[in-house]
Amino acid sequence: MLQEQTDSTVIGSDRVDGTTVYGVDKGKIGSVDKLLIDKRGGNVTDVVISAGGFLGLGDEKHSIPWSKLDYDTDLGGYRIDVTKEQLMDAPRFGNNEPDRAYDREYQTKVYDYWAVTPHW
Amino acid sequence: MLQEQTDSTVIGSDRVDGTTVYGVDKGKIGSVDKLLIDKRGGNVTDVVISAGGFLGLGDEKHSIPWSKLDYDTDLGGYRIDVTKEQLMDAPRFGNNEPDRAYDREYQTKVYDYWAVTPHW
Repeated sequence: MLQEQTDSTVIGSDRVDGTTVYGVDKGKIGSVDKLLIDKRGGNVTDVVISAGGFLGLGDEKHSIPWSKLDYDTDLGGYRIDVTKEQLMDAPRFGNNEPDRAYDREYQTKVYDYWAVTPHW
Repeated sequence: MLQEQTDSTVIGSDRVDGTTVYGVDKGKIGSVDKLLIDKRGGNVTDVVISAGGFLGLGDEKHSIPWSKLDYDTDLGGYRIDVTKEQLMDAPRFGNNEPDRAYDREYQTKVYDYWAVTPHW
């Protein structure tokens, strides 16, 4: 699911951050802000995407279940099968409330929206 | 395994980077540089630790199997059950050869050294 880097089966977290995220129409809709990792099992649960905002400055964030993203080698970035408008409707949080990503109520809305079985 | 952050079960990759790593004697032996993540399954496979070097400037790196680290809430950092000297003997790479982390020959030496079953 993650991008090619030599022929290694692993990738550094530093190479994931900042990668462009494209929508179903292959238009750019954001970039990877960071990964959320399960403390116990060590799985990546979500990818936090920086998107939207005035002049596209990315002042809102969406955590999206990891399973919803695929790496598109042609585009050189991640792709999610929704439009920019659908992403804008997804649960979000502002740059001024980063801890929302760790809030179970918010996470529940995210997994409902994306119709993914929660990891908890 | 990862550190506490509110009572969330997940943690952001940005909070892991830079965290201090302690040895078995609770002395500081390095800090987290980044995580290595399996492209397909989305598991954290290794933690890259920045350690050693002249005046402790951290000019050498070791990737260590994720399962070898535990978060120590008292110390406020990760702990591995080896001494600094044992870490220095572990497979390493320099700042000028970051791609070594993705090299299967290097990875094989790492998993041999730490006596952990490889993830590949």
